[in-house]
Formats: sequence, structure tokens, C-alpha cells
Amino acid sequence: MSEKRTEISEIGEFGLIDHIHKQIKIKNSCTLKGIGDDAAVISAGDHVKVITTDLLLEGVHFDLSYAPLTHVGFKAVAVNISDVAAMNAIPKQITVSMALSNRFSVEAVDAIYAGINAAAEHYGVDVVGGDTTASRSGLILSVTAIGEAKKEEVVYRSGAKEHDIVCVTGDLGGALVGLQVLEREKQVFLSNPDMKPELEKYQIVTARQLRPEARMDIIHELREFGVIPTSMMDISDGLASELFHICKASNVGVTIYEDKLPIDKQTFDTAVEFGLDPITCVLNGGEDYELLFTIDQKDFKKLEKHPDIHFIGHITKAEDGKLLVTKSGTVAQLKAQGWKHF
Amino acid sequence: MSEKRTEISEIGEFGLIDHIHKQIKIKNSCTLKGIGDDAAVISAGDHVKVITTDLLLEGVHFDLSYAPLTHVGFKAVAVNISDVAAMNAIPKQITVSMALSNRFSVEAVDAIYAGINAAAEHYGVDVVGGDTTASRSGLILSVTAIGEAKKEEVVYRSGAKEHDIVCVTGDLGGALVGLQVLEREKQVFLSNPDMKPELEKYQIVTARQLRPEARMDIIHELREFGVIPTSMMDISDGLASELFHICKASNVGVTIYEDKLPIDKQTFDTAVEFGLDPITCVLNGGEDYELLFTIDQKDFKKLEKHPDIHFIGHITKAEDGKLLVTKSGTVAQLKAQGWKHF
Repeated sequence: MSEKRTEISEIGEFGLIDHIHKQIKIKNSCTLKGIGDDAAVISAGDHVKVITTDLLLEGVHFDLSYAPLTHVGFKAVAVNISDVAAMNAIPKQITVSMALSNRFSVEAVDAIYAGINAAAEHYGVDVVGGDTTASRSGLILSVTAIGEAKKEEVVYRSGAKEHDIVCVTGDLGGALVGLQVLEREKQVFLSNPDMKPELEKYQIVTARQLRPEARMDIIHELREFGVIPTSMMDISDGLASELFHICKASNVGVTIYEDKLPIDKQTFDTAVEFGLDPITCVLNGGEDYELLFTIDQKDFKKLEKHPDIHFIGHITKAEDGKLLVTKSGTVAQLKAQGWKHF
Repeated sequence: MSEKRTEISEIGEFGLIDHIHKQIKIKNSCTLKGIGDDAAVISAGDHVKVITTDLLLEGVHFDLSYAPLTHVGFKAVAVNISDVAAMNAIPKQITVSMALSNRFSVEAVDAIYAGINAAAEHYGVDVVGGDTTASRSGLILSVTAIGEAKKEEVVYRSGAKEHDIVCVTGDLGGALVGLQVLEREKQVFLSNPDMKPELEKYQIVTARQLRPEARMDIIHELREFGVIPTSMMDISDGLASELFHICKASNVGVTIYEDKLPIDKQTFDTAVEFGLDPITCVLNGGEDYELLFTIDQKDFKKLEKHPDIHFIGHITKAEDGKLLVTKSGTVAQLKAQGWKHF
């Protein structure tokens, strides 16, 4: 008897996720949104709860040879808060499960929890549960976050419509470039442990990689300005990949402009130093955890002067495709690469 | 500079959990119960949501040399549903995060999800989210379950009071004994791969280990009978250990009777075959996922004839301690050992 064996790498991470999701049916009326957005949405009286979860593994998502344990704890929380933010909800609770090999001491656990508790304090969430267990291979962190919103406040990926303006917060590409710096310094250290890592001039980009911030500040400001985006998600896999998600979910196209894409000077300079195209870093670098959202044109005036929101393009008809207008005026097809762990 | 290093094994799993919890403060008024029960409780309009999470690792919580992938998927869901049941709530949603090494094919993922989806169907929950990622070392499953209840229906560990009757469902010790059988057959197979495992006569106990059931049936029946337990938890670490938790949380003592403890004949016979004391298996065997609860004496008549609820003792004053009355009438101190993964 020969059994068919299909490698996960043949269908890829997104292929695998699609494959799994096809088999899932929703049964309960209190499940307003299941898989397919930044978080699930469930009814909760006159409000809704949003729920999201992320699994972080040593050696896959973080490398303890350069990531301090406290930063790892903070990041594990922040990436989940970012998903709650992407639904336009306010995070309230998290659960934290942790597996540790005997390489880790009680003091190491304290360092991880210092980061978790700092993030919980910073984002105003309660740590309400979890699980602590032994692992045979390093550190594993699984965080689930729960947020709250009024039903009409929740923003999905599916609401973008023609003529909406495409917005991104902060700047992009820093986390990817920061990772290149950290990997290089690790190699230098491994070949000569007496060498001191040269990280001073790369502080912004390495911080983007090691200790990202969820943009809850923007969510609170959007509420103050009375703006509800028409669609939103956080940028964890890369801007191009996320634009593809919004276009697919909303059944629209998009045109973005290279000269509008936000990039920090340190990101730009470091990308060039590493022989990387800065725009490719902005389009395909993951883990920036900035917000990508679309707004109705009527809301543009309210956000126009915001120093940290950038208007990078507009939504078009689906048949117009996904386009990048370069600085020279050339129109190119946008390509989504995204992050691949498999 | 010398840094202090405290091994986790020095303070143990419960010590570590206590150590972590001491640093956690609750800030949000919608968090009704944080860490310290089977699940957290958060307000949700006129209802409450309960939330619980568990992390299962290959080589720590399951061994794929004898656990079929489909059973592992089912169990990962069932153990979380059991925690929801232990709060007297009805499970509605789960999220499932999975990490896989490249040893696993798409067909293997399908087998795991066959179990997850079977459990979701069986318990009436929706799979609403998750995360799928690569792992360097085998299979990791992290499941979070969300349940719903009216606020006054929620049962905590802390409500037991003097004279309440102590109840357990089903029978105990089977999962521990089943594990011994599976480990023995694994060793036999490793030393001689041509040997067929002898599992026919151990079907009940191996099923208890490989594919436990959450007792949602009991939760629904308690509602039909109009009984709200005064305290409840599920038996994952062992009856004695769970009784200690209830006594501590409720500030009471307990007396249980050896001749009232429920044990299946196959569990008893297999324990004897392995040279284990059957009563020790019942008291300290983990992973049975039966329910332990206390009821007010006035509710006894309603449950008295239930074929699968056993009345094993009663709650006393805290100063009376935690006692086991043996078949011979001797009064012994109850000892909690529990499961130790570290």
C-alpha cells in the first residue's frame, strides 16, 4: 500500500492555511467572523469580542543569541495586540502559554515575564490565564488576545471600495533590515567571540525587529477624529502581501505610488549598505506591525495633517489589478512575496 | 559578576506558576476572574465569556509512536473543552495554533485536523482562528477555547462549603494505567519491530489516555436537573491534587472514602498487572478529564440516581484537614502528587 505524501513546502504556508480553512464550517450564531481576518469576532451582548492568537518558537520566530528574553516576551504580546488593533478594537485580556526546556532558569522566566508584564501594562491588558510546561527544544510562547468593540466599530479586510484612500502608519522595512544587521553581527560574533557587536548606528532598525510596537495609539486617534476605516489589517507579512489580502477580501484593485511609501532614513541607508533595494524592503519586509487601512475620501481632511499616517494610493476596480507607480512614472504589477517560515 | 541561577525543578511546576502569578495585576473591570481557576471569566453584556488555553507538545504531552494524529487533534480540543465544562459554561469557539516540522506532510496535517474538526463537531464549537507555522522539533498544538454562561451559572473552585457533598464523574486512573500499557508496548516494539502490540484487552484504558472525553454531557444534565455545583474543576492532574486546589480556594477541608472511589475493572486489573496500587492510580493519575464538584446537600436527591456521578465524601472545616478514610476504616492524610512535566 502506498500512501500519498505531499510536502507542506509544495503548497506553501498560505496554501496550507487555505487547505485547512476549507474544511471548517461555522455552526454557532454567536460566531460573527471566523478564520480569514486579523482576528475572529464573536457576539457579546451589545458589544463584540475579537480574539486572535499567535505562536512564537525559538529558532523560527526569534533567536535568543541576539533577542533579549524581555524583548521576546514583549513582542509575543505586541504582535497579538497588533491583530486586535487591526480590527479597530481595544485589547482587554491576554492568555500566555509558555514551554521551556531545562536550559531556562527561574530568572530567565522572570526576564520573559518582565517583558510580558511591561507589554500588558503598556497596552492596558490583563494576563488572565495560560499554561506553563516543559519543552524538549527551547522556548515556545503562545499568546491569545481578546479585545472589545461596538459591533459597528469593527473593521474587516473586506470593506475597501473604489476611490478609497490607502493609508499606512509609521514607516516600513525597518524590521527586515534590522534582522539583516542582527544576523550579520551574530555571524561576526560566532567567528570571533572577542568582537563587540556594532549596533549603535542601527538602533532604530534593530529595535523594529526586536521590540515592535502595536499601533494602538493610531486606533485611539482614529476614534478621536471620528474615523472608521473601510478596511484594515496589520502589516506582519509585508505591505504587498497585505494589499493582496485586502484586494481579495474586498474584491477590489489598488494602485500605490512608490514616492509615497514611508521609509526611515536608517532603514534606507542600511538596506543600501546590505545591497538590498529599499523599496523591496518596504514592499516585502515583514514584521513591521504598522497598520494598513483604507478610508473613504470624505475622511481624508480629518487625517490629512497626521504626522504618522501616509497616503500611499487608492482603491480601484478589481479588474484594474494591483499596480505600483514607480518614481519614474512606470506602472508595474505589484508582487506579493510575504514571509515564508516553511 | 555572578548571576543567580535557580533551576525550575527546584521550585517545581506549581511553584513556578505561583511565582509568575504573584507578579500579575488585574486592571480592567471586565476581567471578572483572572488566573487561578480552570478558565478566566470576562464580562460580555448580560452573559460572561470563559476562556482557557492549553499547549501540547510532542515528546512531552503525547508520543506519536503510539498516539494517532487524529486522536492528538481530538485530545487537544477535548482538554480545553473540559476546562470550559469545569466552569459550568457552554463552549462556543476555539482557536488552534499548530507548529510542524518538515517531517509532517499535508496528509499528516489533514489527519490532525480530522481530529480537531471531529471534536469541534462533537462539542458544537467553531474553529475561529489560529496560526500555522514551521517548527524545528515536531508537532506543537496550542488550543484556546471560549465558552459562554450566565454570570450566576459560573462555578469557581472557591465555592465549596462545609457539609457539601463531593462528587466525581465516570471513573478514575484509567488514563494513567493506559499510558503504562502504551509505554510498555512501545518498548516491546522498539526491541523487536516484528512484535504486534497487544492492545485488545486494554482498549478502555488506552482510549482514556489517547482520546479522552470532556464531560459536557454532565454539564448539560446538571442544567436539566437544576443543579449548580458549589465548586467544580476538571481532573487533569489527579483527584488528590484537584481536591487540594478546591480546599485551598474554598478555605475548607475534605474527607473522602476509599470505598466510594470509582475505578473501572480494566483499570483495576491493569494496575495490578503493572504492580501499581489501584487506589494510588485513582488518587494521583492525571489526564482523566472527569469532573470533580461539590453540591449543596439539598441537591443530593436530584443527582442520587445518576449512574455516572459518584459521591465520594464531604467538605469539612479547613482545620479538619484533607483526609482519606480507607476500606479498613483507617483515617489517612491525603497526599497530592500531581503530574510533573519539569
